[in-house]
Amino acid sequence: MADAERAGLQEQIKAQGEIVRKLKAEKAPNEKVEEEVSKLLELKAQLGDDGPKKFVLKTPKGTRDYNPEQMAIREGVFNKIIQCFKRHGAETIDTPVFELKETLTGKYGEDSKLIYDLQDQGGELLSLRYDLTVPFARYLAMNKVTNIKRYHIAKVYRRDNPAMTRGRYREFYQCDFDIAGQYDPMLPDAECIKIVAEILASLDVGDFVIKVNHRRLLDGMFAACGVPDDKFRPICSATFWDDVRVEMIDEKGLDPEAADRIGQYVRFQGGLEIVDELLKDTELQKQKNAVEALEEMRQLLKYCELYGVQDKVVFDMSLARGLDYYTGVIYEGVLK
Amino acid sequence: MADAERAGLQEQIKAQGEIVRKLKAEKAPNEKVEEEVSKLLELKAQLGDDGPKKFVLKTPKGTRDYNPEQMAIREGVFNKIIQCFKRHGAETIDTPVFELKETLTGKYGEDSKLIYDLQDQGGELLSLRYDLTVPFARYLAMNKVTNIKRYHIAKVYRRDNPAMTRGRYREFYQCDFDIAGQYDPMLPDAECIKIVAEILASLDVGDFVIKVNHRRLLDGMFAACGVPDDKFRPICSATFWDDVRVEMIDEKGLDPEAADRIGQYVRFQGGLEIVDELLKDTELQKQKNAVEALEEMRQLLKYCELYGVQDKVVFDMSLARGLDYYTGVIYEGVLK
Repeated sequence: MADAERAGLQEQIKAQGEIVRKLKAEKAPNEKVEEEVSKLLELKAQLGDDGPKKFVLKTPKGTRDYNPEQMAIREGVFNKIIQCFKRHGAETIDTPVFELKETLTGKYGEDSKLIYDLQDQGGELLSLRYDLTVPFARYLAMNKVTNIKRYHIAKVYRRDNPAMTRGRYREFYQCDFDIAGQYDPMLPDAECIKIVAEILASLDVGDFVIKVNHRRLLDGMFAACGVPDDKFRPICSATFWDDVRVEMIDEKGLDPEAADRIGQYVRFQGGLEIVDELLKDTELQKQKNAVEALEEMRQLLKYCELYGVQDKVVFDMSLARGLDYYTGVIYEGVLK
Repeated sequence: MADAERAGLQEQIKAQGEIVRKLKAEKAPNEKVEEEVSKLLELKAQLGDDGPKKFVLKTPKGTRDYNPEQMAIREGVFNKIIQCFKRHGAETIDTPVFELKETLTGKYGEDSKLIYDLQDQGGELLSLRYDLTVPFARYLAMNKVTNIKRYHIAKVYRRDNPAMTRGRYREFYQCDFDIAGQYDPMLPDAECIKIVAEILASLDVGDFVIKVNHRRLLDGMFAACGVPDDKFRPICSATFWDDVRVEMIDEKGLDPEAADRIGQYVRFQGGLEIVDELLKDTELQKQKNAVEALEEMRQLLKYCELYGVQDKVVFDMSLARGLDYYTGVIYEGVLK
């Protein structure tokens, strides 16, 4: 349709719209109104798909722009974090924003369904990275790197139903710090905790505490409570006890009794004394996983004392993590 | 197949392979070799699809990892660039790595086919950004920003056939600096050139020159040479004359005579004197586009003198740019 023709048609639609509105305002007989409305619809139909396309001006769901003020804050925070990483001898690497789909799938358990796939455009099957950990593992294997202390701050993608008001997005930053190699047990973990403590202190976010737990202690605890093996991992997809309990009973069909036995354990919270207390537990004693994990926790907490961060660290049995690749110490910094 | 069964089969395959190799080394009769080869193939067939899956350890085509050494260089370069941008009063913004497909399509002319689409996973139609310019325009329109000096250094995505040996990738960085708003003509363009000169000098890459041309002068030149209107834009998808000429004649079916007339123009290279010379050209004089563009070039080159970068700037009629959104001065820094 030529522009002039379209303009003429739009004028007619406008005029016809006014006729309809006038009739309605005058409360004209229904029959008369309907007749004019149908004329209006007919005119609009002539515009058809050819009509002015309404162009939606927005960012994709679960993503956002950052304006200069927000970027200035981000830059300040990133600089402090990176300075700390470098002080601890870390280097940085960069990996592509997408990976071969097969590199990613199967690595995230139930969460795999949240991976963004690229359309097959006559080439490889590709997906946007879901985190920076699997790409890092791929990098290590590909380059046969056995020893590296690296950080990587970059965006990752999850096709989740985001609660943006709570700060959960589909595109968001992850800040990874990893130590790969052979070391005395728990020494790298203690350094990570020291680093988290240094960063949170430097950012002046308020008083904080770093909760720590051990993945194998969780496994041992579940076993001691009679949770079947194949339910360990999916159960840990929530990160705190209240959510875990609901998920266990309602979604995973766990015996409420077992859930309540777990509920006894997850109340434990404290320092080195918790380790000794739990080691006396006759059910946990039967679980090799649990006993070994507790000995590791003892070592970790002692290192934390040496690093002078013991008052920032709390051994918290309610802290859980879902992804399969967690095998040792897990931790989370929270504001008090 | 059980693991033990598979292991046994693999042993047999290994032994049979040695028999074949031995026979071949001994130059045994063909009949005998073929007999043993067919036994080998039979054994291998038994392994079938059940064989160990070969896991490909690679980054997607046209992408790469950056190791710590490369990242250290990148960081050093980025820091110098960002310092220069900030010295010139620029802020930075960030936009998502993907946009609504409709935000991107139609903006890149023939290159639109190189856009990576995400798979429709029950939501919006999304595509990876092809550059940082269209997302910036979307940001300005969405936030009704009319005045900003911003830079944005980030990765963009082109499903091109990459010549990685020549440094062309499917995932690569773009470094954008833009001035949005109303200013005296050519003043922002001159500042951009000054910034490019400062950055290239600070990076110590060797002696360089910044070629400049004007999109409307190109359009005027094409018109003066009798190139049909609808061929202007596609013809500019190559960026230098030799490529343009071949593309014009072989692909776009342009009259070789018109191509050769263009060939006369694109040899012009120099400073302010070129402007005067071209303004005397009777064919160009008939093209409003060309005359206005030449007056702007005069102004630009004078500003460059004031900024003290005139010895780094060459007015070069052979410099072309394809994308539709180029409307004014175009430039490109090259090593001498």
